[in-house]
Amino acid sequence: MPSDHIRTAFFISDGTAITAETLGHSLLTQFPDAKFRQIRIPFVDTLDKAIDCAQQIREAGLKDGARPIVFSTMVNQDTVAGLRRADALFIDLFEQFIGPLEVELDMRSNHAVGRFHGIAESSDYKARIEAINYAMAHDDGISSDGELADADVILVGVSRSGKTPTSLYLAMQFGVKAANYPLIPEDFERNKLPGEIHRYRRKLFGLTISPERLSQIRQERRANSRYAALDNCIYEIDAAQKLMRRENIPWLDSTTKSIEEIAATIMQAVRLNKPAY
Amino acid sequence: MPSDHIRTAFFISDGTAITAETLGHSLLTQFPDAKFRQIRIPFVDTLDKAIDCAQQIREAGLKDGARPIVFSTMVNQDTVAGLRRADALFIDLFEQFIGPLEVELDMRSNHAVGRFHGIAESSDYKARIEAINYAMAHDDGISSDGELADADVILVGVSRSGKTPTSLYLAMQFGVKAANYPLIPEDFERNKLPGEIHRYRRKLFGLTISPERLSQIRQERRANSRYAALDNCIYEIDAAQKLMRRENIPWLDSTTKSIEEIAATIMQAVRLNKPAY
Repeated sequence: MPSDHIRTAFFISDGTAITAETLGHSLLTQFPDAKFRQIRIPFVDTLDKAIDCAQQIREAGLKDGARPIVFSTMVNQDTVAGLRRADALFIDLFEQFIGPLEVELDMRSNHAVGRFHGIAESSDYKARIEAINYAMAHDDGISSDGELADADVILVGVSRSGKTPTSLYLAMQFGVKAANYPLIPEDFERNKLPGEIHRYRRKLFGLTISPERLSQIRQERRANSRYAALDNCIYEIDAAQKLMRRENIPWLDSTTKSIEEIAATIMQAVRLNKPAY
Repeated sequence: MPSDHIRTAFFISDGTAITAETLGHSLLTQFPDAKFRQIRIPFVDTLDKAIDCAQQIREAGLKDGARPIVFSTMVNQDTVAGLRRADALFIDLFEQFIGPLEVELDMRSNHAVGRFHGIAESSDYKARIEAINYAMAHDDGISSDGELADADVILVGVSRSGKTPTSLYLAMQFGVKAANYPLIPEDFERNKLPGEIHRYRRKLFGLTISPERLSQIRQERRANSRYAALDNCIYEIDAAQKLMRRENIPWLDSTTKSIEEIAATIMQAVRLNKPAY
């Protein structure tokens, strides 16, 4: 199989197919020289839909001149069988792992479709939505007195160091209530933490970033401004790091990290062992 | 193994462990009668760290009186070997699936740790951050003239029907630029879509919700208000559905759906085949 061929990778599930896709991505990125066309098909929860999928898989195989790769998380055995009518490399997470788990736990799995079924009304799910609302309401220093008492973590850092996406991800993925507070030049002049966040020192976590990258990001928002100028970014980053060091705030450098990596690092650092959704 | 025992489930990775945890959760929820203590350990990227983990697994097993279950995504074979010094049921996604993929693709995988490595500067990653900023800047009808032209999708629905969390999730998971626009009583009186969104009809997607659930959610925000009263919720939902039907806007009922399910349904409905992150 020459490496310049394109293969089709399918992510198929009776649910959202997001788990299948996440795993499939991780595995496919281990083959950087291969090229893949990626297709997500969620909610394949009947035999008819599975047979339609099999047809789509078959057609992709003919078009590519190579067997498609199918990552799936199908709970129902009949639906899996429908899918398997096509010729492909099937990688099914449930099929592969449910068996060993049943033996280990000495229990039958319930083979229930849709891990989220009924979850929308659960208290976990409500807490997660609440955390998202909290992150929105406490973004960028918008916090009334006393409201930060509810925060699980308060992110600090200069403007555009990654606080907002991280706060939202922490809420979305882990149900963590994350507020965030910008460190601005006036804070450095006063040489003090802004607002009332000094009261919550144990909840603080800092983000820093390389001045070059910061300048680049700020240029995209306000080209040729003082705000985006490299020398100003060098000054702000240096002042922010001094402040964080003095106040004993743990921090990380977000420059080459994804939101996932930043969030996982924070969860570990502040010892929040909330389960992910 | 009696079912009232608690088992410890570990999610371990040389990366964020989020993939291992997502998959692990899906599998464990298939055993609703079993109880699990869940521990996430990210960034296990050296043999020493793996040996520390093995010790933690061993201790959990002794404490529980039952073998722990370890879901992992470890790229490095040596690190896996360190982990395996403990007695546990090991479910490793890489180990299990990389082999068959290598055979199928007739290629060696690069066994590179950290799928996100270097990704923070990629164009895909920038697009995702941009989508998050877009969702924040175009939440709840905050859109200046012409700005909606950039939206991939515009969510509409009554206040608290789930638009904001869905917009953020679409941005975070799929890099989709989602604006959202509330449908308010004045729109129903005028019997017209608000603002300039009628110009972007093909991008519109509606969310609706049961009046009972809506009233409950609104009560939590403004108890005993007209806003939260059941009869008002019945009126708003009914008016919103009439408007959406007349304007030919596809919609779904968010009442019993998770954010993931809502987002996956929208991606399918508006035929956005953007890959997930």
